[in-house]
Amino acid sequence: MELEKYKIEAHNDDALQTHNRRLAFVAAEVENAEAIIQKLVDFQVAIPSWALGTGGTRFGRFSGGGEPRNLEEKIADIGLLHALNKSSGAISLHIPWDIPENTTNIKALAAQYGIQFDAMNSNTFQDQPGQELSYKFGSMQHVDKAVRQQAIDHNIEVIKYGQALGSNSLTVWLSDGSCFPGQLNFRKAFQNTLESLQQVYAALPADWKMFVEYKAFEPNFYSTTVGDWGQSYLYASKLGDQAYTLVDLGHHLPNANIEQIVALLLMEGKLGGFHFNDSKYGDDDLTVGSIKPYQLFLIFNELVEGMDAKGMNHATDLGWMIDASHNVKDPLEDLLQSVEAIMITYAQALLVDRKKLAAAQADNDVVTAQEVLQQAFRTDVRALVAEARLRSGGALQPLALYRSADIRAQLIKQRGAKTVATGL
Amino acid sequence: MELEKYKIEAHNDDALQTHNRRLAFVAAEVENAEAIIQKLVDFQVAIPSWALGTGGTRFGRFSGGGEPRNLEEKIADIGLLHALNKSSGAISLHIPWDIPENTTNIKALAAQYGIQFDAMNSNTFQDQPGQELSYKFGSMQHVDKAVRQQAIDHNIEVIKYGQALGSNSLTVWLSDGSCFPGQLNFRKAFQNTLESLQQVYAALPADWKMFVEYKAFEPNFYSTTVGDWGQSYLYASKLGDQAYTLVDLGHHLPNANIEQIVALLLMEGKLGGFHFNDSKYGDDDLTVGSIKPYQLFLIFNELVEGMDAKGMNHATDLGWMIDASHNVKDPLEDLLQSVEAIMITYAQALLVDRKKLAAAQADNDVVTAQEVLQQAFRTDVRALVAEARLRSGGALQPLALYRSADIRAQLIKQRGAKTVATGL
Amino acid sequence: MELEKYKIEAHNDDALQTHNRRLAFVAAEVENAEAIIQKLVDFQVAIPSWALGTGGTRFGRFSGGGEPRNLEEKIADIGLLHALNKSSGAISLHIPWDIPENTTNIKALAAQYGIQFDAMNSNTFQDQPGQELSYKFGSMQHVDKAVRQQAIDHNIEVIKYGQALGSNSLTVWLSDGSCFPGQLNFRKAFQNTLESLQQVYAALPADWKMFVEYKAFEPNFYSTTVGDWGQSYLYASKLGDQAYTLVDLGHHLPNANIEQIVALLLMEGKLGGFHFNDSKYGDDDLTVGSIKPYQLFLIFNELVEGMDAKGMNHATDLGWMIDASHNVKDPLEDLLQSVEAIMITYAQALLVDRKKLAAAQADNDVVTAQEVLQQAFRTDVRALVAEARLRSGGALQPLALYRSADIRAQLIKQRGAKTVATGL
Amino acid sequence: MELEKYKIEAHNDDALQTHNRRLAFVAAEVENAEAIIQKLVDFQVAIPSWALGTGGTRFGRFSGGGEPRNLEEKIADIGLLHALNKSSGAISLHIPWDIPENTTNIKALAAQYGIQFDAMNSNTFQDQPGQELSYKFGSMQHVDKAVRQQAIDHNIEVIKYGQALGSNSLTVWLSDGSCFPGQLNFRKAFQNTLESLQQVYAALPADWKMFVEYKAFEPNFYSTTVGDWGQSYLYASKLGDQAYTLVDLGHHLPNANIEQIVALLLMEGKLGGFHFNDSKYGDDDLTVGSIKPYQLFLIFNELVEGMDAKGMNHATDLGWMIDASHNVKDPLEDLLQSVEAIMITYAQALLVDRKKLAAAQADNDVVTAQEVLQQAFRTDVRALVAEARLRSGGALQPLALYRSADIRAQLIKQRGAKTVATGL
Repeated sequence: MELEKYKIEAHNDDALQTHNRRLAFVAAEVENAEAIIQKLVDFQVAIPSWALGTGGTRFGRFSGGGEPRNLEEKIADIGLLHALNKSSGAISLHIPWDIPENTTNIKALAAQYGIQFDAMNSNTFQDQPGQELSYKFGSMQHVDKAVRQQAIDHNIEVIKYGQALGSNSLTVWLSDGSCFPGQLNFRKAFQNTLESLQQVYAALPADWKMFVEYKAFEPNFYSTTVGDWGQSYLYASKLGDQAYTLVDLGHHLPNANIEQIVALLLMEGKLGGFHFNDSKYGDDDLTVGSIKPYQLFLIFNELVEGMDAKGMNHATDLGWMIDASHNVKDPLEDLLQSVEAIMITYAQALLVDRKKLAAAQADNDVVTAQEVLQQAFRTDVRALVAEARLRSGGALQPLALYRSADIRAQLIKQRGAKTVATGL
Repeated sequence: MELEKYKIEAHNDDALQTHNRRLAFVAAEVENAEAIIQKLVDFQVAIPSWALGTGGTRFGRFSGGGEPRNLEEKIADIGLLHALNKSSGAISLHIPWDIPENTTNIKALAAQYGIQFDAMNSNTFQDQPGQELSYKFGSMQHVDKAVRQQAIDHNIEVIKYGQALGSNSLTVWLSDGSCFPGQLNFRKAFQNTLESLQQVYAALPADWKMFVEYKAFEPNFYSTTVGDWGQSYLYASKLGDQAYTLVDLGHHLPNANIEQIVALLLMEGKLGGFHFNDSKYGDDDLTVGSIKPYQLFLIFNELVEGMDAKGMNHATDLGWMIDASHNVKDPLEDLLQSVEAIMITYAQALLVDRKKLAAAQADNDVVTAQEVLQQAFRTDVRALVAEARLRSGGALQPLALYRSADIRAQLIKQRGAKTVATGL
Repeated sequence: MELEKYKIEAHNDDALQTHNRRLAFVAAEVENAEAIIQKLVDFQVAIPSWALGTGGTRFGRFSGGGEPRNLEEKIADIGLLHALNKSSGAISLHIPWDIPENTTNIKALAAQYGIQFDAMNSNTFQDQPGQELSYKFGSMQHVDKAVRQQAIDHNIEVIKYGQALGSNSLTVWLSDGSCFPGQLNFRKAFQNTLESLQQVYAALPADWKMFVEYKAFEPNFYSTTVGDWGQSYLYASKLGDQAYTLVDLGHHLPNANIEQIVALLLMEGKLGGFHFNDSKYGDDDLTVGSIKPYQLFLIFNELVEGMDAKGMNHATDLGWMIDASHNVKDPLEDLLQSVEAIMITYAQALLVDRKKLAAAQADNDVVTAQEVLQQAFRTDVRALVAEARLRSGGALQPLALYRSADIRAQLIKQRGAKTVATGL
Repeated sequence: MELEKYKIEAHNDDALQTHNRRLAFVAAEVENAEAIIQKLVDFQVAIPSWALGTGGTRFGRFSGGGEPRNLEEKIADIGLLHALNKSSGAISLHIPWDIPENTTNIKALAAQYGIQFDAMNSNTFQDQPGQELSYKFGSMQHVDKAVRQQAIDHNIEVIKYGQALGSNSLTVWLSDGSCFPGQLNFRKAFQNTLESLQQVYAALPADWKMFVEYKAFEPNFYSTTVGDWGQSYLYASKLGDQAYTLVDLGHHLPNANIEQIVALLLMEGKLGGFHFNDSKYGDDDLTVGSIKPYQLFLIFNELVEGMDAKGMNHATDLGWMIDASHNVKDPLEDLLQSVEAIMITYAQALLVDRKKLAAAQADNDVVTAQEVLQQAFRTDVRALVAEARLRSGGALQPLALYRSADIRAQLIKQRGAKTVATGL
């Protein structure tokens, strides 16, 4: 289904007066409202194709209804999101869950919705029906060269699909690791993985990036072969200039200072992309900003500062993507909340008085440095985000419109109540 | 399949000389070898019916072969374990995964293997096909009384199956909780849960125990309604004398001092049972003793001390059970390793010189207190454990015999390579 | 020194126009601005006497200047804070660091500043010069009855000082615990501690409360004898109706859900008081709201909901106190930031639309429940807090005035640059 | 004081028969007893000069008696340890706590005890009396070049002391970091630190190594500028071939897989040295092997495997040092326990059947891999360690002899009951 433009306009008309009052207030409070709004207009967050269905845990999955049954419907779902918030103009595909039968048609369909193809994702953490060799004991780390080759070949195939669709990056998340002491020779596992990655890297088109994602634990519960940013950095620096580290917020040990990792990777020119979500315990994959919004702000603060220091383009020079699991919420509502949290936080980071902060740092004025950050974080920037949406043709209150327009009910009507999207 | 007695005897004959040498050495080193061996003979650990198949994570499951296809085959598998180690003489059933069609037959079958029915386990963390109401938002905590009643009724049904089989305890593990701030009113969730538990408790036979298991997180990632020992204790003390806390080693926050929790629950007369496994990050459900064997020893040290202080019978007054997931190992081998780790650790705890320890504590002689514990832990007690097995008719080296007798190959031949046991 | 009233007035005059604009905006946005402002006026947070000097770690302490040299100067410092923010009208004394020579005079001095005496704090975690017996191996848990008696007597002495000053509560924080496995018999340590607490409790005046504070670790690094809320609850419930649990935000294991603990303790009528601070790793004792402001909001959300459900008075029915360490900031500035964070967060919690939240919970509408909380948290309530200060005679921008009035420079001039306040 | 040789001999005579029985048993059990004993004879662990006195926390310090009052007495203490266990033949000095007045004399004194000078330690985490500039806001990261220069100069001075004494390595542990978000520009802090380290590195003698130690938190509680192995690796690789990472077991986030870090650093040729201790929560600095002995074994397992793979000499190619704090134990007893734990664990790691392990890994036989490690860990190797001591002229039971010879009492008699050694 599509959301008719008149519905958005009617919704915006209703909300406009209140919005304008709020916008006027915040615009008067901040120095650079117009510049911020423009940056918000430009900023797009990719939606992963697997996040359009209900997520689950090893203990079960409680499906909702109206989940997309194929790639076309996934694109339609993201089209809906993008129509509402004008910040979700990209999809990140997962192979083999989303193999396009006809890439030309799929590309055209996405273009209709104004959606681009962001990073491609390979999958060597599961065995697919008919797969020759098993990944039970890893893929690129595997002691058996034939398994490694299978994983390499799969990644190269994913690149080819990506090329056909207009993507220009590959995210490699390996669940490789071990569940028990002794299971792996850590050194050999690293070296096998490196050699495998090198072969994929060799097949990378010249204008592509490869993102090496790290994760501390799960599904392996003793060691992970790309376990932290240090390991990812080692791989990426050995691979070459097109290889980067990808940071997923939920992939760290307890209490990790993720914002510092982000700053250092940017410093080294090795930060490639981001998987947004939130978590309390592990890779909980909760809605962005739902648990630790200030941590998210501190990360964006480093992103803005570090990218500006390198003259990078916020909107295009890093890969931005959501990677969450929707176990108890309507996936589309969850994604609307996540994108909203990202935009709010990005706006707050843009608000930081960088001169004052730098001066406070130079004076070891810790109190003022904290005040500068809190001043930005405590400011209610929602009207700036809404204005960016308004100017782009989106809805002032995407979630409210999603509900009042009864979109889920229509999706269920179209697709059925028992559909299950591919994914976890 | 069954393991023929002569195979065990032949295996033991081969290993006997070496065993006797080792036994003689350790028996000379420790004061109370005979008493320890007898306690080891008496000690039995229940095997959960769901742990006989390959486990998995939300990212996938890599099945092995020859998994039991029904309750009869599960009992046969435990029969095999018990024939090998003579310490696995009980099964802990899970309803609805193991609903017995004919309880009389099942009871008779188990008796043939020398297996008893330990704690029954209910399941209100998943929706079963045909189930009227969903547990998506909890079961006993649910805002809808009808869902709570369904969960209550299910637990009462589980008790009935247990009565028919000769069990005398019910383990209630609730995954109830929330994924997001605001989702629950914590107080009302507690009170709903308490009222639900009270109704189940009211249906408990007079000679039964109810175990209230707690867990810090997963599958809910913000809050859990029976989240820690304090909460479990609150429920158990409000329920009454037949209600106890059950401790699962993997259900704690990072760095928790589980041995202290065990000691305090014993002090309060509220420790009911144990789920053994091991973990590094969360509820990793790894082989017992594979990650933190000294923590396991410290826990057993408290169990022995605390049970002795109350005049409790080690073998019968608490419920001992394994609760692990076998993602990368043959489940039967994994269980053999787990039981072996438990027996070794129990033996070490029995070795602790309690008088010397108490004297060191009374003198604040921290150095000696540590020496006393380490003296026990560093002693190689494997020959004592093997001797207990030998006297009971088991194998000196259960895992070695399991392999040399090619048991898995025979199970695959009987049951097929693609069978999948019920469970996670 | 004192802050002259005209300086506050001049400061407020300068800031008034901007303030009024902001106030008008937020007052129009929220439903109950006046009621919230009144609650903010009433809310007072006690300042601990030991937090007026520079804090340190085991690695060192880097003193600032102008630290208070005695109790009189400590009261003067809190007087300054209270003049500025009108929310710090109480002091929490620590014995023996702050033994008043003449209680009548001290009481009169505090009254001049409008300061009351909040919970008294005992100290059995350090040895004082001339102390007969050492607390090296604990105080109330100690194996030696004489040491326990010394700790009991000290606490009773603290109560007496408190009575003379008009306090009506005693906070007992015990560092008792152990550094090594085997050091303690957990059960006996618990029982010794309970008996000691019972003796102190017996000396408690009828209108007093006793707060039993828990802490997971530090300075003991293996076990703590009042280690978590469950243990504190056990002590408090065994002691009687005047005994309560005190929650310090930094005293938990990683990832603990503190807001749930708060809700359950309120439900049980056993929450007594609060130590505010913030932390990333352990008991870091950082400025309130500087690391996890949303967690603080969620805690206040439970406090407001839970206290309202019991008809409790927010301002008076729980003990509110800051407990932080100021290692790299001017202590007074740090405290101003902490109190500001508390007031902002309290205001946000008052803003939560409880009817809408309850309805969402009743519908399992997780998305809306989150929206309700975020709506409150994302609202910029600083003008409400400033207005409450203004009405009470405080400064619109306390920190700004503190700086522009050059208060620290004057304190250094009066007291010297090398003074060191008692404390950690 | 010195321990007379005849006392050791008498002690050994008494214990010899039992020892020989145990040795004979274990020698028959393991394949390579002689080779292991020789490696144990060669292995030496340096004792840090600051660990000879009682340690403390920010909450207090409970001194014992007879602590060394100067460098000479510290060397004498280590001489005592070395006489007892023959494995403590090195001291790691801390400047400025241990500035030698006359290096020639000190060197000669140490030689008398058979003690060498291991890594030198600088201190820029505290301000010393008379120090011109403060390290309150860091040292090598400091925004003020003059502070950085002071830190650089201090380190170069430490190198000079080390050269005079015959040391050949410098350990740089920086507490640099921040307590609050915004306090630091992470990138600039890194770059300042790197430039400072480069200047120290430039002053490094050609045969020296520089160890860059990392630590996750404490005394800074928001960020640390050398915070994890990845950051240390970045510094070390940018500095050059003489720079290495130093691993302290207590300096990690919860649940970190330290053995994997060790393996990867060895693989990269960047592991330089080790600080042994144990911990449950943070940098608890407890006795080695007292909390997680299996983790220690897994680390040694990687050390042996990784060093052998590179043809490194176990005894000399890495810097081995204890870094613990003795808050509740006699420091010398604590150190004897720590060294014993290290030797036992090293022996167990040498016992690992590497061929069988490699074969199991090649077969993905996880069960056997675990069995191989546990076989080594469960073996009681204490007689091998004792035999190595016996052959070197040490005591069979160092701790027992230390106590029976009443050494602490004599030290108190000589030095007094109230002495306080320099240190934390």
